[in-house]
Amino acid sequence: MRAARLHEYTEEMADALTIEDVPRPEIGASDQVVVEVEGAGWCQTDNHIIEGMWEPYADQSLPMTLGHENAGTVVEVGDEVTTVDVGDSVICHPVRTCGTCRACRLGEDMYCENSAFSGLDADGGFAEYLLTSERATITLDDVEPVDIAPHADAGITAYHAAKKATRELVPGDYCVLVGIGGLGHIGLQAVDAMSAARTIAVDVKDDALALADSLGADHLVNPGDEDVAEAVEAITDGRGAAQLLDFVGADETTDLAPDVVAPGGDHHVVGYGGHVHRPAQDLVNGEFSYQGNLVGTYTELQELVALVEQGEIHLTTSEYDLSDINEVAAKLERNELEGRAVIRP
Amino acid sequence: MRAARLHEYTEEMADALTIEDVPRPEIGASDQVVVEVEGAGWCQTDNHIIEGMWEPYADQSLPMTLGHENAGTVVEVGDEVTTVDVGDSVICHPVRTCGTCRACRLGEDMYCENSAFSGLDADGGFAEYLLTSERATITLDDVEPVDIAPHADAGITAYHAAKKATRELVPGDYCVLVGIGGLGHIGLQAVDAMSAARTIAVDVKDDALALADSLGADHLVNPGDEDVAEAVEAITDGRGAAQLLDFVGADETTDLAPDVVAPGGDHHVVGYGGHVHRPAQDLVNGEFSYQGNLVGTYTELQELVALVEQGEIHLTTSEYDLSDINEVAAKLERNELEGRAVIRP
Amino acid sequence: MRAARLHEYTEEMADALTIEDVPRPEIGASDQVVVEVEGAGWCQTDNHIIEGMWEPYADQSLPMTLGHENAGTVVEVGDEVTTVDVGDSVICHPVRTCGTCRACRLGEDMYCENSAFSGLDADGGFAEYLLTSERATITLDDVEPVDIAPHADAGITAYHAAKKATRELVPGDYCVLVGIGGLGHIGLQAVDAMSAARTIAVDVKDDALALADSLGADHLVNPGDEDVAEAVEAITDGRGAAQLLDFVGADETTDLAPDVVAPGGDHHVVGYGGHVHRPAQDLVNGEFSYQGNLVGTYTELQELVALVEQGEIHLTTSEYDLSDINEVAAKLERNELEGRAVIRP
Amino acid sequence: MRAARLHEYTEEMADALTIEDVPRPEIGASDQVVVEVEGAGWCQTDNHIIEGMWEPYADQSLPMTLGHENAGTVVEVGDEVTTVDVGDSVICHPVRTCGTCRACRLGEDMYCENSAFSGLDADGGFAEYLLTSERATITLDDVEPVDIAPHADAGITAYHAAKKATRELVPGDYCVLVGIGGLGHIGLQAVDAMSAARTIAVDVKDDALALADSLGADHLVNPGDEDVAEAVEAITDGRGAAQLLDFVGADETTDLAPDVVAPGGDHHVVGYGGHVHRPAQDLVNGEFSYQGNLVGTYTELQELVALVEQGEIHLTTSEYDLSDINEVAAKLERNELEGRAVIRP
Repeated sequence: MRAARLHEYTEEMADALTIEDVPRPEIGASDQVVVEVEGAGWCQTDNHIIEGMWEPYADQSLPMTLGHENAGTVVEVGDEVTTVDVGDSVICHPVRTCGTCRACRLGEDMYCENSAFSGLDADGGFAEYLLTSERATITLDDVEPVDIAPHADAGITAYHAAKKATRELVPGDYCVLVGIGGLGHIGLQAVDAMSAARTIAVDVKDDALALADSLGADHLVNPGDEDVAEAVEAITDGRGAAQLLDFVGADETTDLAPDVVAPGGDHHVVGYGGHVHRPAQDLVNGEFSYQGNLVGTYTELQELVALVEQGEIHLTTSEYDLSDINEVAAKLERNELEGRAVIRP
Repeated sequence: MRAARLHEYTEEMADALTIEDVPRPEIGASDQVVVEVEGAGWCQTDNHIIEGMWEPYADQSLPMTLGHENAGTVVEVGDEVTTVDVGDSVICHPVRTCGTCRACRLGEDMYCENSAFSGLDADGGFAEYLLTSERATITLDDVEPVDIAPHADAGITAYHAAKKATRELVPGDYCVLVGIGGLGHIGLQAVDAMSAARTIAVDVKDDALALADSLGADHLVNPGDEDVAEAVEAITDGRGAAQLLDFVGADETTDLAPDVVAPGGDHHVVGYGGHVHRPAQDLVNGEFSYQGNLVGTYTELQELVALVEQGEIHLTTSEYDLSDINEVAAKLERNELEGRAVIRP
Repeated sequence: MRAARLHEYTEEMADALTIEDVPRPEIGASDQVVVEVEGAGWCQTDNHIIEGMWEPYADQSLPMTLGHENAGTVVEVGDEVTTVDVGDSVICHPVRTCGTCRACRLGEDMYCENSAFSGLDADGGFAEYLLTSERATITLDDVEPVDIAPHADAGITAYHAAKKATRELVPGDYCVLVGIGGLGHIGLQAVDAMSAARTIAVDVKDDALALADSLGADHLVNPGDEDVAEAVEAITDGRGAAQLLDFVGADETTDLAPDVVAPGGDHHVVGYGGHVHRPAQDLVNGEFSYQGNLVGTYTELQELVALVEQGEIHLTTSEYDLSDINEVAAKLERNELEGRAVIRP
Repeated sequence: MRAARLHEYTEEMADALTIEDVPRPEIGASDQVVVEVEGAGWCQTDNHIIEGMWEPYADQSLPMTLGHENAGTVVEVGDEVTTVDVGDSVICHPVRTCGTCRACRLGEDMYCENSAFSGLDADGGFAEYLLTSERATITLDDVEPVDIAPHADAGITAYHAAKKATRELVPGDYCVLVGIGGLGHIGLQAVDAMSAARTIAVDVKDDALALADSLGADHLVNPGDEDVAEAVEAITDGRGAAQLLDFVGADETTDLAPDVVAPGGDHHVVGYGGHVHRPAQDLVNGEFSYQGNLVGTYTELQELVALVEQGEIHLTTSEYDLSDINEVAAKLERNELEGRAVIRP
C-alpha cells in the first residue's frame, strides 16, 4: 500500500515525507483492527515531529508513517473484537492502549504505560490502511469519516482542555481563549456548548477573530491593537478571567496569566510554541496554575463525537491527495492553510 | 505602645526594623477587635517584605509594623461583635476581609477585594497590640497563643497546599515534599494526617531530613547525595509522584516536575525563591500543572487549629523578645534559626 | 404599612392571610437594609407554610408576614453598609445570614447557624417594606425588580439543583426533568445553558410539556400516555439518565430512580410533595443517590442574575395586587395559575 | 473438582449448598485466568443470594457455585495475558469486566455492561478452581491469599464508601459509622487512614464497640443505651456529622439521617437490611443525600491492597473447610460468627 513516511528529521517541509509502497498491516492480536483510511488530518504536531521536536519525548524509530488524526472504514478485525465490525465507519483515537495498566483501568488511558501512538511512535494514517485496535475505534452513526477525522487529535485536545475549564466556570465568569486556529475554534464551541460563561477570543489575525465572532465569541481582542491584560480588565470589570485556554503556548501567551487570570484560576497550556517563564512569586500571589494539557481520552472522543453529531461543533476542512502531503506541511509552516487540511489516502 | 516598624526597604537585616512608640490602635468599626499580642511568628516573608520583594504586589505604605502570624488575648471588641469576647485567647488570621465581596461570599476570603493584610499592607503584630476584626479571629480552647502563633501564616499556607494535594492522593500514591523547614514540616504532618499516601521528603540539609524522619516520612532524599528524579523513580517503581509540594520554589526545585511528577499530577509552588522556567511542551507531554499556593482561608485556619488541638501537628518554636527582632531577621537570613522564631511583644 | 399576614395555620387558602396595617420596619443594626417591595413572588411553599407544613422545621411565630421572593428599591441602609445604596434596585436573597459562622465562612450560607428567612421564620415581602441586610441584597443593572422577583427563591432553588446536576453531565448524557412548572421550567433552561446534555421533560400536563418544548427540551414524556422508565430506556438506548431533577418530590416521582437513573447517577429531590420510599438494596444495586436540595446560596443568586441578564433564562409571570393575595393562594391550590404570580404591594 | 453449589433459593441455611463434583473450568478466551482458590470469604450477601434476594437484580441461573471473595494461585492463563503469570498469588476482584464498554473505559468498571460477577451471576470461588480474567486479578506481594480474600468484596465495598466519605471530610468534622461488623471495622480503619476526621462508632453490640475502640474510634454509641441523635448532637457540639456510613441499611438506621447528618452531608447506604423511608421534605430541609454504594472498582481494590500491605487495615478471620460451609451460613444467620469466615477449598 502507499504511505507517506518520515526517514529523517528535517526543517525542510517541502520534501519532508516520502510516498512509498509498504506492506499492508496485518492483524497480530485478538483485539486488533485494520482500517481503510478515508481521511487523515494534518496537524501542527506533524510539523513538530518532522523537526524532531518529539524525539526526546517519544520512542520514535524512523522510517515511520505519520498521521494521528484518522477515520475510515473497518476492513478486518481480530477474532475477539466485539464492538466494531467490518464495514463500520470509525474514527480512531490516536493511541492504542493496553487496557490493563492502572492508568487504563482508571479511565486515564492517555497515561497508558504500554501505549502505541499512531504517527508519533507507531505507523500512522497517512497511508491506505492503518493498524489500530478495538480500544481505539469509535463507530460513527451520522457523520462521514473524512469530515470528522481532525477531531481524533485536534478535536479531543481542544475538547479535553475546554472540559477542564468548564468544570470551573459558572455564569458570570469569563473564559479567555488565546489562538482561534484549528484547536481554538473547536475549544470555543466546546466552552459555549458546555457552560454559560462569556468568552473572550484573542488572536493576532483578524481572520481568526472573524471566525471567533461567527462562532459566538462574546468579545474579541487583537494583541496587535490593544494590550490584552488591559482589555480583559475592562471587559471583566477588573475581576479577570476565571479560566484561560492557551492554544499557542508561546512565551508571550504564557506571560498573560499573572495579569489576566483571576485568583484561583487556571492557565491551560495546550499549544507548546515556547516556554512558561515566570517568578514563582507570581503563581503564589495570584494563586493561579499553569495546567498542562495532553490529548483527550477515548471517552472524551466519544463525548466529542456526541457533540458533533448533535450539531454543536462545526469544523472547516479542506481535502488533499496523499501525493500533496509535503505541500500541506509547507503551507502550514507558512501559516497559509485555511481550516484543517485532511489527507485522503 | 512599642512596635517594630519598617521605615525603608533594605537588604541589611541586622537593623531593618525600628522599635518605637506608637499609639495603641482604636476600634473604628462595629466588627473590629483589639488583641494584646502574646506571640508573633517571624517568617521568611518578613525578610522578603524588608527587601521590598512584595512592594510590586502589595499596597504598602511605610513606616509599617510587620508581623502577620499573631495570637494573643482579646482586650476590646466593636459593638456588634458576637463570636469573640474580651479575655478570649485567639489566633488571628493575617487577613481582615470584608465579608461582602463575591470572593468572601464564596468562602475564598484570601481573594477578598477589600482586604487588609496585617504586616503586609497594614500594621501587624510585632507590637503590644494588634487591630484586627471578628472575621479574622479564632478562639482557642486547648492551646496557648504563643505556641500556635506561627500557624497563622506558615501553618495555614502549608495546610492549604497539603489539603489540595491530599484531595488527589489515594493509597498507593506517593507525595514528594521539597524543603522540610518551617512550612515543610507542617505540610508533612498534614499529608500524613489527611491521607494514606506515602511521603518522600527532600532537603539539602541532613538536619531537616532527620526532622522529616522523626515526623514519619517514608523516604528521605538529599539532592546533595543523589539525583532526586532517579531516587523518586526507584522509590515509586517508575510511576512518579502523584503530587509534589515545593516549599522552596527555586529554579532547581521547580525544574523537578517533568521528571518527578506522574502524568496528571501537580507541582504545588508554595515557596517563591526563584522562577518556574520550562518548555510548554514539558507541561503538555507530562500533563502536570504548576499550581500556585497562597495563604489558606479562615476556615482552613479553623481546620488547622482542630488538627493542632487533636495533637496531629507539632511545631518547634523558640521565643524572642521584641527587642531582639532584628537579630531574628539576620539569623533567618543566615539560615541559623532552629524551628520557628516567635516574638513576644 | 400594609402587609399580608398569617395568623394561624389553615387548609383554607381563600382567607388564609389577613391584610392589615403594621409598623414599617426600622434599621436595627449597621448592616441592615430596608427595601420598598415592588414585586414578591407567590410560591408553592407559601401554601405549605399556611398549612403548617414547615412548623416542625422552622422556628415560626405567628402572626407573620409571608413572602420570600422579593425585589424592590432600597430606601434606607445601616451605617456600615457599603455595597448597596438608597435608590438601588435590588433582588433579595430570602435568607439574612450572619457572615461569621463556619457555614457562612465556607460560602454555604444556606446552612447559616444564625439566619432569618424572610416569610418563613421572619416577616417577609408581602408588604410595602421589607427589612433585610446587605448580605441578602444584589443590585440589579438591566432588569426590573418585578420581573425578577420569583428568582429569589424558585429561581435559585432550580438553579442550585441544575448546577449540581450539570457538574456531573457530559456530552452524550441525558438529564430527566420531572415537573415543568415554576421551578422546572427554570431548571430546564439552566441545564441547557450550562451543559451539552440532552434533556427529557416529564409532566402530566400537556401545557407544561408544550412549554418545555418551546424552551428547547429534546424529548417530552407524559406519564399519562406512556411508562416513564420505558420511555427513558428507549430514548437513552438503555443507558438511563445520568441525572434526574425531580421538581415534584411525590411518591411516584421518587420511585422513578431505580429504573430511570443510570448507575452512579443522582435523583435530585427538589419538590417535596411526598416520600422517598425504596428498599436500600435498590440504592446499592444501582448506586444512585437521593440528593436533597435546598434553596441556593447568595453567590448562586448572583450567578442566576447573570444568566437572566445574559438573556439565558426567561420567566413567565402574572401580576396581582396585595389585596388579591388569598385568591392567588387558592388558585395555586387548584393548579389554575399560569406562570409565576407576583404580588405588587 | 469439588464445589459448593446452590440448587434452589431457601431460607434454610443449614443445608443451603450442596458439595459436589463439577468439571474444572477451562480457559475459553485469550484474557482468561484460572485460579486455584486458597481462600474464599463468606459474606452476608451469600445468605441474601441463598434467600433469593438478588434474583430480581441479577441474571442468576441455578445451580451456581457461590463465593465472590476469592484469592489463590494462578494455575493457567489465556494466551494474551501479560500482567499475571502461572504461580502468582492473586486476589480476585469479584467482577469480570469487558474493558470496552463506556463504563469500563471511564474506570467505572462496576457499571460494566457485559460483566460476570463470580458467585452472583457466574460460578464463584467456593470450589477448588475459579475461572476469572486478567482484568479481575491483582498480584499480591507481601500478603497471603487466605488472609486477604475477604477484601475482594467486603473490603472494597467498605473502602469504596469510606473513600467517598473522606473526600468530603476535613479536620474538625465527624464521621458516624453504623454497624462495626465485617464491613464496618474495615471502613473505620479506612476513614482513619485517609482523613483526619473524628469517628463515632455506633453498634447495638458491645463487642462490636469494643472492636471499634481497639481500632481507634474516637467515640462509641450503643443505641440500646442512648439516643443516637442526641449522642451525636452532644459529641459534635450541635453541628452534626458531616458524613454517615451505614453498614446496616435497616429502616432504623436510614432514619438517622435527618437528625444526625449535618446540612450538605451524606448518608451512605452500604448495607441493605431494610428501606429508606422519609418525607422528601426531610431531604430538602437538611439538604443531605442517601447515597447508594456498590462494590468498589478494580483500582479501588488495588488501593485497598496497598493499604493492607502498608499495615493500615487489619482483618480478623477464621478459617473453615469447604465441607463446613453450610454451618458457616447458619452461624452468620444466627449472628454467631467472630470476624470474617474464610472457606479453604
